[in-house]
Amino acid sequence: MPRIAVVLLSGGLDSSVALHLAKREGYEIHALSFAYGQRHTKELEYAQWQAENIGVASYRVVDLSFTSWGGSALTDPSLEVEKGDTARKASPNTYVPARNMVFLSVAASIAEAVGAECIYIGVSEVDYSGYVDCREEFIRSMETTINLGTERKGLNGQPIRIEAPFIHTTKAEEVTLGVELGVPFDRTWTCYHGGEKPCGECDSCQLRAKAFEEAGVPDPLL
Amino acid sequence: MPRIAVVLLSGGLDSSVALHLAKREGYEIHALSFAYGQRHTKELEYAQWQAENIGVASYRVVDLSFTSWGGSALTDPSLEVEKGDTARKASPNTYVPARNMVFLSVAASIAEAVGAECIYIGVSEVDYSGYVDCREEFIRSMETTINLGTERKGLNGQPIRIEAPFIHTTKAEEVTLGVELGVPFDRTWTCYHGGEKPCGECDSCQLRAKAFEEAGVPDPLL
Repeated sequence: MPRIAVVLLSGGLDSSVALHLAKREGYEIHALSFAYGQRHTKELEYAQWQAENIGVASYRVVDLSFTSWGGSALTDPSLEVEKGDTARKASPNTYVPARNMVFLSVAASIAEAVGAECIYIGVSEVDYSGYVDCREEFIRSMETTINLGTERKGLNGQPIRIEAPFIHTTKAEEVTLGVELGVPFDRTWTCYHGGEKPCGECDSCQLRAKAFEEAGVPDPLL
Repeated sequence: MPRIAVVLLSGGLDSSVALHLAKREGYEIHALSFAYGQRHTKELEYAQWQAENIGVASYRVVDLSFTSWGGSALTDPSLEVEKGDTARKASPNTYVPARNMVFLSVAASIAEAVGAECIYIGVSEVDYSGYVDCREEFIRSMETTINLGTERKGLNGQPIRIEAPFIHTTKAEEVTLGVELGVPFDRTWTCYHGGEKPCGECDSCQLRAKAFEEAGVPDPLL
């Protein structure tokens, strides 16, 4: 029996490195993206490319439109994405309500259906831009809930783990690891906008630029 | 400011009574159903009818197709729904992996977006047909996770509660309460199949029939 993992794959830097980590561990991988009303589909194209490039058992895009209830500049066309200010205390208006909880719940459903022993998610508490659902406390609580709310027949009742390998890792360390793993960073999309080139101004772009700079590696996307 | 609740509304007996309970409490109600690849749409038609009948601030049907990864006779057309055997120990093949976790996560996202203080879900640990995600232990863990994974800006950081008013209630007691609240039971659909009349043979039909019988009330659907 292969050991199986579900990997949440956004097409960004973090999840692409996580995908390669799962591959190195030898897992059969079921990758999962969400079309949740993002402003652009570029990251989904990159996610699919990453999945095909590494070779996965399955790749799914789950449609789940957060746009119908809004609450975030990422999914509400009437709101403008805030310019970068990564030192702010409150979360930016790109926060999508309960996004990681929804993503992890669907991943848990798939994990149970395919008999996966773990779910990879590339969140980091360090460079988390103020999002509450990127903290370890949330991730561990979600893991407990997943094991109370699933049967895990395919795993003979063994727990499903949430692997959040970057929870205490800086993005610069992720870049260094990604280089070591051979992650094609030129096919990872981080910018909140979907232009030809990253905008360079949003939170995401600023955190990415800082990470490559600290790692002493040029960003092949620029 | 109105007090706001999100109500998970399947169109079945439990959630329809829960809807009326939320109304009695005076909440502004945002009702929510899922099109998750059920075998029929009858319960969704009844859910919408119940929402419109009672008067809600919003009613949404969220499309989320569990069919793409299967694992349940409710969403996999290649599996036959098991005949009723409510005394069995294991969960029946109508179990949909992590369904209530996914439903509650999406409800939490909406709760955060609209500033709701609670989420109503009509699950019962008593008549739960063997589903792990209908147990109080799971519900309470989910509540903890929701509060770790959301910001609740609209609530000034106050916790979001999960109201599971029937968690220790028999379905017969729900019927009695529903009669008291004036729930139109003739527009609640319980059967796993979507025929003209309930099949009378599936788990759901058997539990419903037993409930009406114990409550000493005729089922207006039959």
